[in-house]
Amino acid sequence: MKFFSGMKRLLFGRRLANAQMGETLLPKRIALPVFASDALSSVAYAPDEILITLSLAGMAGFMFSWQIGLAVGVVVAVVVMSYRQTVYAYPNGGGDYEVAKENLGRFAGLTVASSLLVDYVLTVAVSVSAGVINAKAMLPFLDGWEALAAVCVIVVLTIVNLRGVRESGAAFAVPTYIFMVSMILMVATGLFRIFVLGQDLMSETADLTVVRPDGGDDLMGWALIAILARAFSSGCAALTGVEAISNGVPAFKPPKSRNASRVLGMLGGLAITMLIGIIALANLTKVHLIDEGTGTHYIDQLGNTIHSAANTVTGQLARTVFMDWFAPGFYVVVTATMLILFLAANTAFNGFPSLASILAKDGYLPLQLHQRGDRLAFSNGILMLAAAAIALVILFDASVTALIQLYVVGVFISFTLGQLGMIKHWTRELRSEQEPQVRKRMIRSRVINVTGATMTGVVLVIVLVSKFTHGAYLALVAMGLLFALMLAISNHYLAVEREVALTPESDRALPSRVRGVILVQHVNLPTTKAIAFARATRPTTLTAVTVSIDDDQTELILDQWEAEDFGIPLKVIASPYREITGPFIKYVAELRTENPRDVVSVYIPEYVVGHWWEQFLHNQTALVIRTRLHFMQGVMVTSVPYQLASSDARRIRTKKAAERAKAADGRRVR
Amino acid sequence: MKFFSGMKRLLFGRRLANAQMGETLLPKRIALPVFASDALSSVAYAPDEILITLSLAGMAGFMFSWQIGLAVGVVVAVVVMSYRQTVYAYPNGGGDYEVAKENLGRFAGLTVASSLLVDYVLTVAVSVSAGVINAKAMLPFLDGWEALAAVCVIVVLTIVNLRGVRESGAAFAVPTYIFMVSMILMVATGLFRIFVLGQDLMSETADLTVVRPDGGDDLMGWALIAILARAFSSGCAALTGVEAISNGVPAFKPPKSRNASRVLGMLGGLAITMLIGIIALANLTKVHLIDEGTGTHYIDQLGNTIHSAANTVTGQLARTVFMDWFAPGFYVVVTATMLILFLAANTAFNGFPSLASILAKDGYLPLQLHQRGDRLAFSNGILMLAAAAIALVILFDASVTALIQLYVVGVFISFTLGQLGMIKHWTRELRSEQEPQVRKRMIRSRVINVTGATMTGVVLVIVLVSKFTHGAYLALVAMGLLFALMLAISNHYLAVEREVALTPESDRALPSRVRGVILVQHVNLPTTKAIAFARATRPTTLTAVTVSIDDDQTELILDQWEAEDFGIPLKVIASPYREITGPFIKYVAELRTENPRDVVSVYIPEYVVGHWWEQFLHNQTALVIRTRLHFMQGVMVTSVPYQLASSDARRIRTKKAAERAKAADGRRVR
Repeated sequence: MKFFSGMKRLLFGRRLANAQMGETLLPKRIALPVFASDALSSVAYAPDEILITLSLAGMAGFMFSWQIGLAVGVVVAVVVMSYRQTVYAYPNGGGDYEVAKENLGRFAGLTVASSLLVDYVLTVAVSVSAGVINAKAMLPFLDGWEALAAVCVIVVLTIVNLRGVRESGAAFAVPTYIFMVSMILMVATGLFRIFVLGQDLMSETADLTVVRPDGGDDLMGWALIAILARAFSSGCAALTGVEAISNGVPAFKPPKSRNASRVLGMLGGLAITMLIGIIALANLTKVHLIDEGTGTHYIDQLGNTIHSAANTVTGQLARTVFMDWFAPGFYVVVTATMLILFLAANTAFNGFPSLASILAKDGYLPLQLHQRGDRLAFSNGILMLAAAAIALVILFDASVTALIQLYVVGVFISFTLGQLGMIKHWTRELRSEQEPQVRKRMIRSRVINVTGATMTGVVLVIVLVSKFTHGAYLALVAMGLLFALMLAISNHYLAVEREVALTPESDRALPSRVRGVILVQHVNLPTTKAIAFARATRPTTLTAVTVSIDDDQTELILDQWEAEDFGIPLKVIASPYREITGPFIKYVAELRTENPRDVVSVYIPEYVVGHWWEQFLHNQTALVIRTRLHFMQGVMVTSVPYQLASSDARRIRTKKAAERAKAADGRRVR
Repeated sequence: MKFFSGMKRLLFGRRLANAQMGETLLPKRIALPVFASDALSSVAYAPDEILITLSLAGMAGFMFSWQIGLAVGVVVAVVVMSYRQTVYAYPNGGGDYEVAKENLGRFAGLTVASSLLVDYVLTVAVSVSAGVINAKAMLPFLDGWEALAAVCVIVVLTIVNLRGVRESGAAFAVPTYIFMVSMILMVATGLFRIFVLGQDLMSETADLTVVRPDGGDDLMGWALIAILARAFSSGCAALTGVEAISNGVPAFKPPKSRNASRVLGMLGGLAITMLIGIIALANLTKVHLIDEGTGTHYIDQLGNTIHSAANTVTGQLARTVFMDWFAPGFYVVVTATMLILFLAANTAFNGFPSLASILAKDGYLPLQLHQRGDRLAFSNGILMLAAAAIALVILFDASVTALIQLYVVGVFISFTLGQLGMIKHWTRELRSEQEPQVRKRMIRSRVINVTGATMTGVVLVIVLVSKFTHGAYLALVAMGLLFALMLAISNHYLAVEREVALTPESDRALPSRVRGVILVQHVNLPTTKAIAFARATRPTTLTAVTVSIDDDQTELILDQWEAEDFGIPLKVIASPYREITGPFIKYVAELRTENPRDVVSVYIPEYVVGHWWEQFLHNQTALVIRTRLHFMQGVMVTSVPYQLASSDARRIRTKKAAERAKAADGRRVR
């Protein structure tokens, strides 16, 4: 225990009191990197996934990359604008879940919640995997160890997040800013060299020709459209993370809504600029990627077939732009990309536990998720997220191209439902609002949200159709299971709440008498203590009971009992099956039957030991008896702990944990 | 729970009462197969291991097989004679452990116990593995799946044994008798065909020449002697199982000692006859085996090198004797051999839990191992044995030749210490005995035990020297660890017993007052019940305490509290860290400090649910609080269970388990 609590402090830092909560509110300059790293970082893999998907159509596919990039950019712009409305309308966070629940009902809310929870897990898995793959441009030895490396990164992120949100914000701001600046500088430098200096920049894959799996001609017609739709869907991964801000409004410094809205705007602008810039540069330098798994492959200028995948777009661009000009630039870009992707996963570490906590408060998840850990972070939610993400990374061997098929669906489900909810919100607000100025603003907001709902709805259909069989169905199954689970939990809590509610008819009568029963298997100090405590409570009757499993032993107990002269009768129960539990339970049950209006109080001496392994040597019977007595009406079970000497060290630690409550005096009395 | 208890009954049968114990006593005709199958079955692999070891010396090695066989036979005879003395002197079982502990002290007893426990595990692993390998002569598809098949067999044996010893005896008698008869018939038929009919019976490996690993000449001199010593050591595996009878005397029908002694005699005669018969027949039909792992190999008549191992000795003999004459005989022998080997493992399933139970009673193992399961079998010991044996089988890939290197050491340690103990026993008895007739018998017994001790001591040295580096050291390490563990457990129990013993100086003073504290986090029926029960016990003071983690929630509780008018003050404790446990513990600690002579009684309402998964949704805080309060002196913790409707089904099952104690009336009262 000492070791663990020591480790806990070391890893997670001092715990924070409620009053220190204000300290953890985020200024804009910190909120941007914390909440926006997800959306920003996706420019590090969205272009890759667009190009990889397009490669399925052959060389002709790459020609469409800039149109796809533009389309994604338009969606980003519309969604960001829509969310600025949400952030103002719902300043208490909860985001789409809150919006959908309030405006569209319980089931819509739960649908959004399931989608978001699944997508948070995928954000961690995808971002960390992409970070590891990006790092390979610089650290080739990672090849073949991607999954292990990704798992290690997730573990580190988990620890950092269990320490609390503030420190992670501060620690994450620097690399995020370096990433933004270095990416923009890379694009700018590339364009400058091409258009101003007129240099002929060519990527390392420019000379490689992409051949379709069957070696056939480039795709045309409907087949091409299907590929374009999938490429667009994968590119929409750039959208994830936008909703994190609307969930996280309460973490902003006041004025919360305005600050959140500004950060959202900055984020949108940056994401669009970087995404389109990278795709344009990739087009200009002729970056060609293949989808290794499907059988697409390269043919080089000598006609040799090459099956292995190339570096990421960012890696290739950084090499092309900087390597022969300003080599450190390459390392900065690749390092910053790797870091931002790991930090993107951090967005989910903020969003998931926060959403889980809200869901727990609403009774959809176990209450433990609601209570904050002693580090103000929602420790339980963080641990669940980490476990699920690690499982996914191992299952899909850290392949971004495989994971991305499951991704995005959830985000667009919640986008669409959230926007629909916002439309209903404004319609309702307009019903009661008279002020023309305000009405005008509301109508404008509603127009934006209608546009948003339409666009995200269309994208959702495209994503579903183009990705369903490629893995999206798995994400839908996971969401369905979560939905069912949360509904079941909610129904359980509601049923229990109804059952235990006090009504005017509730029986408030006191039991007439207390029948005390002490279980005695040895005559020793713990038993003596139990007897003393039991007598102190002055029950109406007090009986000691011993279960005879060994005649000699029983004989001994009876002799000792007589010698001690406790003044309490000792009843011996025969145990034909040589077990203590059954006959004792039966005795208590009979006592209940004979005295139906009384309450039975069972006293069980328990040994308190100092080491966990000593538990195996004691108290097993007490544990079983307590569990079984709990099912009996009108029985209460009292543990009378006897602290063995070995428990001293542990007790002292417990006392310290109770913040030196000066309980030392108590030790004088037994 | 219902499912599990149903499954348990289905698999393990009805439980047996103490009075039914007599039913499970074994008549000789059942005791022989139950206790002797181990020693008898080893004739199915001891000859193999002798020949395999001899093959390391090349073709010349096989010439020594009959001498080795005879030597092992002599050891069997002496050991059986020695044990007949033990069985009479110690009719209560415990065997060598009991003998060594009583005559040579605690450490000798523990040494024997550790050795026997390890060897029981090895008996299961070796016998089952050998059974699977034998079965391959008939079921070649098992090749490559030996370990899995062996694990399955162990699982089946475990289930059978958890059902209780009687049924296993009845189920195991038939195949054991078939084995004995068919083996003896096989040897007799073989000898008849060779010597009476003058047929030239040759085994399938008769024409194969064995070449030593390095292809060198046959070994001579010291190297040969070393090989002979190892072959003898492996052959001594035939000795294991003899001690099972001396441990199991109480399971025999009266007169227990005489019956056990007779069964021992029968067993010895049968084992020697079969062992020497098989080795003789293997010699006559020129069975040649190789040790695959070491690089020994065959050269056939055409000069081709063959590296794969041949069938077992039993398989080869059965084929040679019966296949061209009376084919069903082959199948009977192989099937019976397979079955007896599985049943041999059963001997350990009788011996291990019985020894573990005795050790637990003596305080060397956790007390749970002492209490019989509800099926009269020592369920816990059976499960431990099965787990350890499965681990060994998987670790050594079910290779008998590898496992046998670990084997036998333990048996001979316990043989030697047991015999030494017997010598001391007779010497002590002789000191007080006057009757010349009895003295004469005792002196005769002592002579037998001196012979036994000398011989087993010599064998132990041979086994240790010849096998130490080949794997025996692993067995010794395991024994050492067990020894240390049991000593630690014993010291712990002794220390606790001393600590909790009542002395004239023990403080028997009653606490002056009881301070009742109720933890209130909701105002509902469970809380109301806790309050009613707490008030029924009439504590000196009674305070309700709520920990405020959410202002709105606390506000609500205060309002409801006032409305209900319980007549008990409700104290609100602030919780800066938004946790319930810490502040509550601190409050109780302060209460203790202020009232050092009083006892604090903490009442915690607990939800009783019907399904295990519902546990995750309730009571988590109660659990933590109870655990932490246990470390505080002068505090008792009372759980007031509130049975939710869903717990009804489970409660009814619990009641059934309490054997319909007519507790139904109790339900009328809350």
